[in-house]
Amino acid sequence: MEEFTVATNATAIVSSKASIGLNVNIGDFTIIFDNVVIGDNVSIQSHCLIGQPTPLSNGEPLIIGNDSLIRSHSVFYEGSQFGSKLMTGHRVTVREKIEAGENLMIGTHCDLQGHTKIGDYVRLYTGAQINHASNIGDFVRIYHYSVLTNDPNPPSNIVLGVKVNKFAVIATMCCILPGIQIGENALVGAGSLVRKDVEPETVVAGVPAKYICRTSDIVLKDGSNQKAYPWMRHFHRGYPKEITDEWMSIYDN
Amino acid sequence: MEEFTVATNATAIVSSKASIGLNVNIGDFTIIFDNVVIGDNVSIQSHCLIGQPTPLSNGEPLIIGNDSLIRSHSVFYEGSQFGSKLMTGHRVTVREKIEAGENLMIGTHCDLQGHTKIGDYVRLYTGAQINHASNIGDFVRIYHYSVLTNDPNPPSNIVLGVKVNKFAVIATMCCILPGIQIGENALVGAGSLVRKDVEPETVVAGVPAKYICRTSDIVLKDGSNQKAYPWMRHFHRGYPKEITDEWMSIYDN
Amino acid sequence: MEEFTVATNATAIVSSKASIGLNVNIGDFTIIFDNVVIGDNVSIQSHCLIGQPTPLSNGEPLIIGNDSLIRSHSVFYEGSQFGSKLMTGHRVTVREKIEAGENLMIGTHCDLQGHTKIGDYVRLYTGAQINHASNIGDFVRIYHYSVLTNDPNPPSNIVLGVKVNKFAVIATMCCILPGIQIGENALVGAGSLVRKDVEPETVVAGVPAKYICRTSDIVLKDGSNQKAYPWMRHFHRGYPKEITDEWMSIYDN
Repeated sequence: MEEFTVATNATAIVSSKASIGLNVNIGDFTIIFDNVVIGDNVSIQSHCLIGQPTPLSNGEPLIIGNDSLIRSHSVFYEGSQFGSKLMTGHRVTVREKIEAGENLMIGTHCDLQGHTKIGDYVRLYTGAQINHASNIGDFVRIYHYSVLTNDPNPPSNIVLGVKVNKFAVIATMCCILPGIQIGENALVGAGSLVRKDVEPETVVAGVPAKYICRTSDIVLKDGSNQKAYPWMRHFHRGYPKEITDEWMSIYDN
Repeated sequence: MEEFTVATNATAIVSSKASIGLNVNIGDFTIIFDNVVIGDNVSIQSHCLIGQPTPLSNGEPLIIGNDSLIRSHSVFYEGSQFGSKLMTGHRVTVREKIEAGENLMIGTHCDLQGHTKIGDYVRLYTGAQINHASNIGDFVRIYHYSVLTNDPNPPSNIVLGVKVNKFAVIATMCCILPGIQIGENALVGAGSLVRKDVEPETVVAGVPAKYICRTSDIVLKDGSNQKAYPWMRHFHRGYPKEITDEWMSIYDN
Repeated sequence: MEEFTVATNATAIVSSKASIGLNVNIGDFTIIFDNVVIGDNVSIQSHCLIGQPTPLSNGEPLIIGNDSLIRSHSVFYEGSQFGSKLMTGHRVTVREKIEAGENLMIGTHCDLQGHTKIGDYVRLYTGAQINHASNIGDFVRIYHYSVLTNDPNPPSNIVLGVKVNKFAVIATMCCILPGIQIGENALVGAGSLVRKDVEPETVVAGVPAKYICRTSDIVLKDGSNQKAYPWMRHFHRGYPKEITDEWMSIYDN
């Protein structure tokens, strides 16, 4: 179907059964297993496992979209799919049955346990832990070491995933309890334990997290007196121009 | 003594001094050092270091029991021993002087600093941090990013390990202070900082953790009206039939 | 300039452009990139990436001082420099524009995001997360999973680094909010969320962290009735004799 023009470093081990796009670079000491579909212009760094077999995949392949970058020492199982422009840090772990949109960033040491739906332009920072049945909306940002849990009575057979609605922000070192919904455009302050649903456009913080204020009450800490939220007003780094242009048309009048 | 029938991938580096059982698989780019005893039917994935030398081992070997699975990028030092059916996630770090029973699960990114006693059927989830002098009883479960500390006056030369008694559960993102005892069948709620001993069969939570209720007061969040604890009533996944049969005979009348 | 006497394991990949000192050992499956200056008597374990290229380095090399030890699966980018006796755990990630003094210890899984100034004899334990614009003084100790943040309105373009002054101790699982100063010789108790500056020689703890007492009020939990702080009174492990002799001359009369 496609021409295979893979720049494979000499020490990489690449299955001949893997489907690999044009202009793909595969780093040293990386292993590409059989059940893998990699798009065009993808760079996979060294020491990775791509398409690790698992019976839990039901035979589904790992699909990596075009223009992606997977950094070193990462492990992706078969049975998940990622849109274009996936970008990872080092040593991420990604299990089966994840359906992710475009332009996902997965930070260093993130652990995605699988069975998760992820929208477009999501940002996960170092060590974020995403457990089964999580549902993460477009443009959500989850910071360092925050955890989406799923078992309300550990251990039990109950799986209540967390839902994080679009544009919501979960700051560093938060623990979100099972079945919780984080509303659109909400902000969970650093170090919070969230055990009640968070209303859209509100700020919660604390252990346990309590309502603090409306997001619109927060002013940027740069002396500008500008509103800090919705963050799309002022923060555009890493998003494509067609999207930030739209944000500017909404918020600049 | 034993026949050596090792399926070593071509790129693995295996010391001829290592003692390796029957039906062992060793992944690509993995290094097996000298002072190692690996049982039968063991699978070690790629990019691991097994039996990393250290003067702190006093010359003791690393012993891995039969039927074990060590996932990729893991590092085990010499000088610790594990019963049969050890199973690890990816990138675990395991230092010297650990004595662990059967059927231990060590999740991805766990860091076991050594000098620790671990019972049978213990479960450690992603990023759990087990420091020196910890003592973990049979069937204990410690969830994501929870830490057992040991230095009451950091930094000092005092080492007061945490003791977690059998069947106790420490939920996600807890910090257990030095010298604390967690009682049998107790539950520490997510995000807790524990600085007082926890009585058996009680639930504590918060920063600092306080008594919440008896574990027997908690009902499963699945509408069944069943008691959630002792969890052995209803949760059997990953435990062998002879054990869960015994639990059923205790709790089903 | 220097003689090159590198003990490179057969499977390592070492750029001929890298400058490598005398008596250097490079582990299996490790990659040394071009823009690297490694001192004498350095040991780099297996599966590492040393000098990973990045446009953010402005062409600056990675400099590793003499007598250093980098443990396995670690990733260092080009554009940072480390004094002599650097010692890392496994799987550390170190980005560009870090200027670090002598005798730095970086624990397993630490993530140093770059653009950070680090003094001499600093100790970072497992999973510590050091974000851009952090400033860490001499002899500072930061324990497991603690995070120095930098964005007061996530996400924003504001970068307010944390400053930790010399001899201060941040215990396990603390989150330090952007722009905070931790005073000299201060102690932040485990599990704290720090959102106000911490005065020198004081102890804070909690979520949010509050003043607890003077550090001089704390007595060692070993029955000795000795003061626990300044910790240099009684804790000397890992520091050179000329320094601990000086501490003893100050505190022993």
